[in-house]
Amino acid sequence: MIFGRDTHKQVGEQVKQYANKVLLHYGGGSIKRSGLYDEVVASLKDAGVAFVELGGVAPNPRLSLVHEGIELCRKEGVELILAVGGGSTIDSAKAIAMGVPYDGEVWDFYESEAMPASALPVATILTIPAAGSESSPNTVITNEETKRKYGAGSPLLRPVFSILNPALCMTLPKNQAANGLSDMLAHIMERYFTDTPNVDVTDRMCEGVMRSIVANGPKLMEHYDSYDLWAEVMWAGKVAHDGSLGVGRKESWISHDMEHELSAIYDIPHGQGLAIVFPAWIKHVCAANPTRFVQFAVRVFDVDLAFADQDAIIAEGIRRLEAFYKSLGLPTRLTEIGIDDKDFETMARSLDRDGTIPYSDAMAIYRLAL
Amino acid sequence: MIFGRDTHKQVGEQVKQYANKVLLHYGGGSIKRSGLYDEVVASLKDAGVAFVELGGVAPNPRLSLVHEGIELCRKEGVELILAVGGGSTIDSAKAIAMGVPYDGEVWDFYESEAMPASALPVATILTIPAAGSESSPNTVITNEETKRKYGAGSPLLRPVFSILNPALCMTLPKNQAANGLSDMLAHIMERYFTDTPNVDVTDRMCEGVMRSIVANGPKLMEHYDSYDLWAEVMWAGKVAHDGSLGVGRKESWISHDMEHELSAIYDIPHGQGLAIVFPAWIKHVCAANPTRFVQFAVRVFDVDLAFADQDAIIAEGIRRLEAFYKSLGLPTRLTEIGIDDKDFETMARSLDRDGTIPYSDAMAIYRLAL
Repeated sequence: MIFGRDTHKQVGEQVKQYANKVLLHYGGGSIKRSGLYDEVVASLKDAGVAFVELGGVAPNPRLSLVHEGIELCRKEGVELILAVGGGSTIDSAKAIAMGVPYDGEVWDFYESEAMPASALPVATILTIPAAGSESSPNTVITNEETKRKYGAGSPLLRPVFSILNPALCMTLPKNQAANGLSDMLAHIMERYFTDTPNVDVTDRMCEGVMRSIVANGPKLMEHYDSYDLWAEVMWAGKVAHDGSLGVGRKESWISHDMEHELSAIYDIPHGQGLAIVFPAWIKHVCAANPTRFVQFAVRVFDVDLAFADQDAIIAEGIRRLEAFYKSLGLPTRLTEIGIDDKDFETMARSLDRDGTIPYSDAMAIYRLAL
Repeated sequence: MIFGRDTHKQVGEQVKQYANKVLLHYGGGSIKRSGLYDEVVASLKDAGVAFVELGGVAPNPRLSLVHEGIELCRKEGVELILAVGGGSTIDSAKAIAMGVPYDGEVWDFYESEAMPASALPVATILTIPAAGSESSPNTVITNEETKRKYGAGSPLLRPVFSILNPALCMTLPKNQAANGLSDMLAHIMERYFTDTPNVDVTDRMCEGVMRSIVANGPKLMEHYDSYDLWAEVMWAGKVAHDGSLGVGRKESWISHDMEHELSAIYDIPHGQGLAIVFPAWIKHVCAANPTRFVQFAVRVFDVDLAFADQDAIIAEGIRRLEAFYKSLGLPTRLTEIGIDDKDFETMARSLDRDGTIPYSDAMAIYRLAL
């Protein structure tokens, strides 16, 4: 992790340690408008690193672009994939990195039909906090033909380095910052809401980082050019997903998977979908382990009610979680973004088939999200 | 980090990935009495790993034993140092690991006169939580001829693996558990008490782990055979010193250095010395950055007094810190362990000469510790 102002200008010398030719992978035109593209290209050239480029990564990154990247890398003899952007770009880069040395169809990895035996190294310059992908060994890709959004992971995919310059985030549209904040909070909650007992140290670390996100997120939306607030948020996003908050506990990624079903069909931003699915998921499951959700309400959101009424404490915790999302300008119900129940059955059956969650539970949670 | 019950029985197969012949390095007879020695030897033999051994590491590990270890490893063609014990054993193992391939005197590294260019790999089986040394790149050794206790560090010294089985700690004398708890808390405080602004995420992570230590430490002394409490404490000790709580901030290791002067002369346990030095250090420096010590009192020790009186909040925080030490059976004043002011000048001049802290400040802090 190379963190701080102007650190992106080191990219050439850092890449040089791993490769002489890279694929420069990015999304839309924003990195060209902001001047970042020119600075990255200048740094690569100064270090004598050759590159080819592939832009056009969209939110919910597509398998077709991954195929295009794999072809390009093979043809050009690329040795490292440099992702410049947010989670979508990094996830797409990881898919390409696995696909280049693989004889079969790269989607196999996402269908859990194969595990990568090798991969090109991936490096990143992060422009959206909360991806988590900058420090994680995971990738999520959408197969636009089948409308399935699946994840894959391998230690081979953890970036060899990631450059985090908080100042690069300031040109992001505000709704993308909000989505990022929702996503990083979810990365912690999926680990925090566990049935594993005796995880006090990591519980308290999770709570600390969640409190920091809840405190700094809304402040960031008010003071969007604050380097210091971006630094807090960007580091929180890294810690949230680097694995350190999940050690020793069973994690539950059901909310993420339920959101993936949603964004695969409706193409809504992941962070928006999570702000809708997570409160509904909590409402549906909290009775099974109320103590954990009481702990969440009290320690993360300072809910101060008589312990005798656990349900009221949990309900107030959910209300404050929703208030946090709203303070970022995020929706917390499907109906707010014009989605009704017509695809619930399709999504619930898919989740049931994948073994994520039984059909009836999935239906109940989606209904609570209406 | 290989964590959990019976994990020490994997040591042979783990070592085999790095070496065919190891130095088995340990302290006194406790690992023989507990049966751990036999289990480790059996695991090494099962994996076909040859070994020579060197016991006798004492608290405040000595340079002379390090020299002995270096000679032995060279003569026997040892390829990895396996430390079985606590921080002293691991620190001694790291010193040997640096010394084996070095032509000069290994103490050079501690005098900051050289940096190691190579080192044998070190692996550990931890039997005392809070060493921190199991995940850190640092080592502290006492030169018994000059009565100097100095630290050295290099990325080469980070153990290639560490085995943490909380059940192994249960045979420790209780005073050693108390020393460990004091040491791990100090490892966090030395990072937490910083002047670097805008470190909210790591502040809250530090606070979370400190709260966990303060909550679980005294419980552990009451329920000394609780695997679950040992697991919390052992993981807290690892997190406290693996570097993750210090990112992005200037750290201050003055209390550690002041304690090293003390234990180099009086040979008191490090954790005991820290429980004495740290409250005195806080009293001396808190006026320079009161907000940080208010934050400590409020967030770690739940001090709830009118914000108008910062000094009272800080004083109550220090009182609760001392109460925590006392609840573990630790002293908080030099006079409690029969030390008076006769060596203050020697120690203060040494600290001044090393550039750690000016003479007059060191004298003032030692006096506050009487």
